[in-house]
Amino acid sequence: MTAELISGTQIRKEILAELAEEVRKMKAKHGRGPGLVTILVGENPASISYVTLKIKTAEELGFHEVQDSQPVDISEADLLALIDKYNNDPTIDGILVQLPIPKHIDEKKVLNAIDPDKDVDGFHPVNVGRLMIGGSEVKYPPCTPAGIQELIVRSGTETSGAEVVVVGRSNIVGKPIAMMMAQKGPGANSTVTIVHTRTKDLAAHCKRADILIVAAGVPDLVKPEWIKPGATVIDVGVNRVGVNETTGKAILKGDVDFEEAKKIAGKITPVPGGVGPMTIAMLMKNTVKSAWLRLE
Amino acid sequence: MTAELISGTQIRKEILAELAEEVRKMKAKHGRGPGLVTILVGENPASISYVTLKIKTAEELGFHEVQDSQPVDISEADLLALIDKYNNDPTIDGILVQLPIPKHIDEKKVLNAIDPDKDVDGFHPVNVGRLMIGGSEVKYPPCTPAGIQELIVRSGTETSGAEVVVVGRSNIVGKPIAMMMAQKGPGANSTVTIVHTRTKDLAAHCKRADILIVAAGVPDLVKPEWIKPGATVIDVGVNRVGVNETTGKAILKGDVDFEEAKKIAGKITPVPGGVGPMTIAMLMKNTVKSAWLRLE
Repeated sequence: MTAELISGTQIRKEILAELAEEVRKMKAKHGRGPGLVTILVGENPASISYVTLKIKTAEELGFHEVQDSQPVDISEADLLALIDKYNNDPTIDGILVQLPIPKHIDEKKVLNAIDPDKDVDGFHPVNVGRLMIGGSEVKYPPCTPAGIQELIVRSGTETSGAEVVVVGRSNIVGKPIAMMMAQKGPGANSTVTIVHTRTKDLAAHCKRADILIVAAGVPDLVKPEWIKPGATVIDVGVNRVGVNETTGKAILKGDVDFEEAKKIAGKITPVPGGVGPMTIAMLMKNTVKSAWLRLE
Repeated sequence: MTAELISGTQIRKEILAELAEEVRKMKAKHGRGPGLVTILVGENPASISYVTLKIKTAEELGFHEVQDSQPVDISEADLLALIDKYNNDPTIDGILVQLPIPKHIDEKKVLNAIDPDKDVDGFHPVNVGRLMIGGSEVKYPPCTPAGIQELIVRSGTETSGAEVVVVGRSNIVGKPIAMMMAQKGPGANSTVTIVHTRTKDLAAHCKRADILIVAAGVPDLVKPEWIKPGATVIDVGVNRVGVNETTGKAILKGDVDFEEAKKIAGKITPVPGGVGPMTIAMLMKNTVKSAWLRLE
């Protein structure tokens, strides 16, 4: 038996097609599409590459897209004033500040200055709180966990009553996805265990999981014998384990021993091509939602 | 073997004595104690009895205590204006609106109008978010879960690496205590499972627990054979199962079959006298913290 592959690349395509259709409807009805601004401070090459990818996706979907590049020596006050400007701009539905920002600026202060109703990354304490409260309170689920939930649901995995084990307790992945899967409602209603570095018997917990979500940042942490036969395995890890000598590109590995795990799992995400491609799609989805909430 | 009783009544006394000492220091240094206002709308007898208990405790600790009773037909706008007044009053550190409030007023709007830095109940989305983010972000943990954590820690139960099973996923108890026990830091660092009505094998999960926290609202739900020998059992349930014919008082039962469970558990809270007495103590603790944050 070989596990069915859950392709983030494919599912992203489906989601982006759905969003493009929504944007067409929005423009026909309201005369504008969603507005997204990306604020980039300085010229960090990795940041430029992320921002470029976000911009490209937003443009393809027909968003009103603003790229606002600021010099590396911008003052904290000026950056806060800039955010305030976009908070008050009715054509802007989502505000992103690309991290990292220079050390002379208080990162938390800047992120908390974004209007929670335009915080499409979902990291503002108000949105974290709304996520935990659940139900109709939830506004912008954080993008990586939201992508994980989409992969689980769109792969046809039953979540209600399923045993979900989440490996890792980060604020970006582990804690929010654990909370999301435990909530009432479709795509959730799971029995959730959150395990981490202090957990005594990691293997036994993983072995219980109908749905195993691994976000530990340790290459090949999860061994094939830790996987329940037929389980759905979501591998969030993106670990650089070397460089391909011919192409010069980084060799990426997940947190799960993929080659062996796929012989046991029922469904499994590859790395790359699994969770990774979903994040920007979910960012776009949050921005479309924000636009609808502002327009209707 | 009979389990050691974890007495909330006794632990509350210890906490209140510690807080009284802090208030003395605060007054000596800053010329004032913590300020707490309780807003009561209408004359619901249960609400009056809760508010009276809060006021009495606050007075005993030497707080500056304001009881603000409003007529049942107060308008939403007037109630919001009242909250705004206390938000801007530098002598007030905590604002409580006793629930329920009359149906012509939007409860969520009112609660969200309280300055999160004076929301000593910890239910404002900002404080829920801070709780989930964890670490130094946490400001006011909600009172019942905070009381549960105190009972666990002060009973000498090891939490790091412990298997914690939380039965119930309410916003008031289940979700926040699960999140608190999974966080890094002292009194936490546990492996946490959250189980609920959709969970398939409740008994097997409970049986794994080194620390079993039950907040289901179902009398005698947890059977003795569900308890791991030596476990610490925290019973959050307060179920009225009848009336004592002699005294006319309600007969209360927890979610755990106490008489049988105490033969198996290592430590156990009684009902009443376990979690119940802790809640107001933790409310007072949050108010003292708020005052220190405002004064220093």
